[in-house]
Amino acid sequence: MAAAPRPAPYRFQRIGADHAPGQEQSQVARGLRHVDFSHGDVSAFPPPPEVVDAVTSAMRDGGRYAYSPYRGHPFIRDLVGQRLSAFTGAPIDPGSEVIVTPGTQGGLFLALSALVERGDEVAVVAPDYFANRKIVEYLEATPVPVDLAYRTRGDEAARLDLDRLRTVFRAGARLLVFSNPNNPTGAVYTADDIEEIARLAAEFDAFVVVDQLYSRQVFDQRPFTHLRAHARERCLTLVGPSKTESVSGCRVGVAVAPPEIVDRMEQLQGIVSLRAAGYMQAALEPWFVEAEGWLDQRIIDHARIRDDLHAVFGASADLGTRLTEGGSYLFLEVPAAKGRIDEFVRQLRTEAAVTVTRGPEFGDFPAAVRLNFSQDHQAAVDAARRIVDVAARW
Amino acid sequence: MAAAPRPAPYRFQRIGADHAPGQEQSQVARGLRHVDFSHGDVSAFPPPPEVVDAVTSAMRDGGRYAYSPYRGHPFIRDLVGQRLSAFTGAPIDPGSEVIVTPGTQGGLFLALSALVERGDEVAVVAPDYFANRKIVEYLEATPVPVDLAYRTRGDEAARLDLDRLRTVFRAGARLLVFSNPNNPTGAVYTADDIEEIARLAAEFDAFVVVDQLYSRQVFDQRPFTHLRAHARERCLTLVGPSKTESVSGCRVGVAVAPPEIVDRMEQLQGIVSLRAAGYMQAALEPWFVEAEGWLDQRIIDHARIRDDLHAVFGASADLGTRLTEGGSYLFLEVPAAKGRIDEFVRQLRTEAAVTVTRGPEFGDFPAAVRLNFSQDHQAAVDAARRIVDVAARW
Repeated sequence: MAAAPRPAPYRFQRIGADHAPGQEQSQVARGLRHVDFSHGDVSAFPPPPEVVDAVTSAMRDGGRYAYSPYRGHPFIRDLVGQRLSAFTGAPIDPGSEVIVTPGTQGGLFLALSALVERGDEVAVVAPDYFANRKIVEYLEATPVPVDLAYRTRGDEAARLDLDRLRTVFRAGARLLVFSNPNNPTGAVYTADDIEEIARLAAEFDAFVVVDQLYSRQVFDQRPFTHLRAHARERCLTLVGPSKTESVSGCRVGVAVAPPEIVDRMEQLQGIVSLRAAGYMQAALEPWFVEAEGWLDQRIIDHARIRDDLHAVFGASADLGTRLTEGGSYLFLEVPAAKGRIDEFVRQLRTEAAVTVTRGPEFGDFPAAVRLNFSQDHQAAVDAARRIVDVAARW
Repeated sequence: MAAAPRPAPYRFQRIGADHAPGQEQSQVARGLRHVDFSHGDVSAFPPPPEVVDAVTSAMRDGGRYAYSPYRGHPFIRDLVGQRLSAFTGAPIDPGSEVIVTPGTQGGLFLALSALVERGDEVAVVAPDYFANRKIVEYLEATPVPVDLAYRTRGDEAARLDLDRLRTVFRAGARLLVFSNPNNPTGAVYTADDIEEIARLAAEFDAFVVVDQLYSRQVFDQRPFTHLRAHARERCLTLVGPSKTESVSGCRVGVAVAPPEIVDRMEQLQGIVSLRAAGYMQAALEPWFVEAEGWLDQRIIDHARIRDDLHAVFGASADLGTRLTEGGSYLFLEVPAAKGRIDEFVRQLRTEAAVTVTRGPEFGDFPAAVRLNFSQDHQAAVDAARRIVDVAARW
């Protein structure tokens, strides 16, 4: 008897990952230099050289690095705990409050799995990182959107709809998950908004997962407020060297959270993947202690690309965007009518040799695309001009 | 208001990972060389040198390796698919039937998540790898044990209780998960049993997940039967270089399965961890093409340790074991009365400087411990003698 296709468990029906970013396979236009804006280009912005050295050394000294407790090597957690404590402005006990995960994605999955019960309502920001919503769905809970008003003029800050958040908490949600700087818009939350999130969490006995993956890359000396400095007992912070530091290929991330949440994440990590690769945990050794000026230069380089792309897109009557405040993402409003975004994205690939991530991945954004501008500077600018041309033809 | 401890989601109540192997923290006896039998010693048996070179090169050529499709680099899947096709004796389409995962553990989690619906009954072998049962519990399904009769005399093969498997399938289970060679006993399934498993799967339209992590390390020229050669459409095979090849520190594993199952696993990998570390996937390049004689020597070295430990334990009236046929595990019956295994294990640590994994992790085995004997040969033999001494005092 031939095997019939096996039905997918119910959990799978909920996540709908058909358009997973970075997984696009369609034909790219020939004769043009393809720019894949779905993630950063590590050839244009390589990892700090110390990272390659640290991992190579760890592999040659396998006995010390190959195996670690599920939550990560104690000596790595000590280093990371000290540095993140200084960075976030709140103390960290590395023994109980830190877990190293296979990338920040691994940390996000463990965190939400450790916090979300089936049937829960979970506040998610719109727009925000697509996996927030998908993991909540996978856990058979319900994501409830809270808008981030990011379409502001000039220097005006993006603001979270805090009245809505209060309503959602009042209606029973006990968890908020969001990214700061925001993915996909590059907006940085104001100190007022972060403090009010902390206050609401305390008022409603709620918990907050904040993905601060890009929090080392903030432009224009803008102040950045760490939620955990205001809500240490009620928040879980996700960070890691995958973005600004271009260490995504190592799959190491860090979560900082109250001990009972870290315990639970470790318990789950023991059946999901055991641990972040033992050797790769060494990639965290140079983190936050890169060579003098390394981070500043990286921020300057990205600010320049940002400014040039902003100028190119700003000159087009067909496109709209907002100056990125932190991180390498730019959210571009495009002239694709509702329901035609897939066609627009495909045309960018086939005619402009450009890969972007479609707006609907981030919520109800049918006419937007996300670009990661951590690319070769000139290639990115040239690609931006081609995007303008495609948009002009719509 | 202070944050109250947050209740764990229901899923967590089911997995009970309090005794996760390799996570033991209690004090070790001083003055003795500690032998950690909970996993292999990669200093005693290092990875093939080609692995370190391959990963280091990949990191220095970041653009090609840093990011891959969630299911892994196409060029890695091509290599692996060809080699595993030859190894398992059944064709593999690398484009649709192979996924690279963060270790075989990552593959096991994705596989069971892709196949198990809440409320299902799932046939698990007893004894077998603890995570099989724990993941089934985590998915809110029910593991139903099927005994492996491994306490055989002399050369007699261990046999699966196939009548019981038939009964379990008849009662509604549609999935069997097991390891071959068996973890923890080191038993290798007979060709008859594997073929009958395939037949029963076809008869009941069931599916089988087989963890063949140690299938390259079979002793005494014993024949090994690959399930997928008899049930390609109904089985998922987990393999990887973490054990025999000592590449556990890279966290790369491989699953081979029908396309619709691989699709589903990839979809889930996209939210669980994105991908096995891009650079670490290069560790699979030298896999199955190690230097001439490398694998043979490794098998010989392990067979010698096995023989010596078997002699030490066999001379004790207080201990019982069975000659390992494949892999590096040895399951030791110890004189700990029911309910006292934790005390026995603790005493091994404090008095004999030996860490082992407790039998109850593998099912209802209250008076057994598992040893991974991939250790420094002399240190392992010395440690075995100390285990005999501790047992003699009980």
